[in-house]
Amino acid sequence: MHFTSKNINDLNRIKRLNLINGISGIKSANLIGTYSKSGTNLSIFSSVVHLGSDPAMLGFIMRPNSEIRRDTLENIKGNGAFTVNHIHESIIDQAHYTSAKIDSNISEFELCSLTEEYLNDFPAPYVKECQLKIGLQFVEKVDIKSNGTSMIIGEIKDIYIPEECIDDKGYIRLDRIFTVGIGGLNSYYSLKRITSLPYARKDEIPKFKNKLM
Amino acid sequence: MHFTSKNINDLNRIKRLNLINGISGIKSANLIGTYSKSGTNLSIFSSVVHLGSDPAMLGFIMRPNSEIRRDTLENIKGNGAFTVNHIHESIIDQAHYTSAKIDSNISEFELCSLTEEYLNDFPAPYVKECQLKIGLQFVEKVDIKSNGTSMIIGEIKDIYIPEECIDDKGYIRLDRIFTVGIGGLNSYYSLKRITSLPYARKDEIPKFKNKLM
Repeated sequence: MHFTSKNINDLNRIKRLNLINGISGIKSANLIGTYSKSGTNLSIFSSVVHLGSDPAMLGFIMRPNSEIRRDTLENIKGNGAFTVNHIHESIIDQAHYTSAKIDSNISEFELCSLTEEYLNDFPAPYVKECQLKIGLQFVEKVDIKSNGTSMIIGEIKDIYIPEECIDDKGYIRLDRIFTVGIGGLNSYYSLKRITSLPYARKDEIPKFKNKLM
Repeated sequence: MHFTSKNINDLNRIKRLNLINGISGIKSANLIGTYSKSGTNLSIFSSVVHLGSDPAMLGFIMRPNSEIRRDTLENIKGNGAFTVNHIHESIIDQAHYTSAKIDSNISEFELCSLTEEYLNDFPAPYVKECQLKIGLQFVEKVDIKSNGTSMIIGEIKDIYIPEECIDDKGYIRLDRIFTVGIGGLNSYYSLKRITSLPYARKDEIPKFKNKLM
């Protein structure tokens, strides 16, 4: 099937949303937790990406007109802190419904029966139910002119990770803690490790066969 | 296990790279193809993200000192076009080795025995072995000051997708075309769909039980 840009434009809004949200492949599944004096906020994000390891930085995309996520941004600007928490198989439903647009005087922690956790004086709530959690300090908001979205960037200050999913070399086994992935707007996938390959050196490239011939 | 920012800084370089590259969760697995008069270029990226559906836009992160990927950027700036191609289970090894640093007069297509495919006059090569392929027009390069990386942004012009993995509503089934995900720098995961949940409306939130109590 071939969609041209005209075909894509002509799709009804819902079908276009589903298609384009899913087209980049699998996406990370995280809950972002924030704090302000008027309450906490928790929201699901599928756009958290690795930006660099030294300093250790992550970013995520924020839409311009998203009311619920605006609370997240206001809170982050307020105290400069947010947490990123891996969604695992047992809390998919609870995590998904943090995306509902609710009044900002209600916390999604309460609404979705997830538990706020404060660790080592970090000024934003972690999700106690999550096994892998990251505390980040807000660093930069980068505006993307072409569509009015922004990338919110944080530097990693704390990592909490179960010992059984990380080895001596720092490799993480996402499947051992049942971290999931997101497809499109609302599909959830489990992960199964297939292989780990060595660092690709010029002189060690295998002789591949072209599989189409 | 708890890593503070001091612990992270004190890790040896390789362990820090592995840990921080894997910490955001599962990542998309794509090959980006580009063209210039002096040759084609193909490189694996785990940072392709959805930026918006109207207009349909994707972005990916480019490191400052990456020689091989600089070819990709030069080519994109040259003719304004690039392709994003989903990596599936049968071509993981070939895709992985496109990350080797090789002389820029050799094409990774040839090196890794993958096949250039030109469709509907689009001025960048698709990967014939891939089932889901996207042609994008370069729109914007956004610089991230805090660590010198950039986000390269493109607007989707063409989508090629097998009929069996997309339904009437535009939902994509990544598992039906064996699209994989990347963990860290070099681990590959297969995907299995667990569930798809409805759009989260305020009045339809289930009564969840707190699982820790």
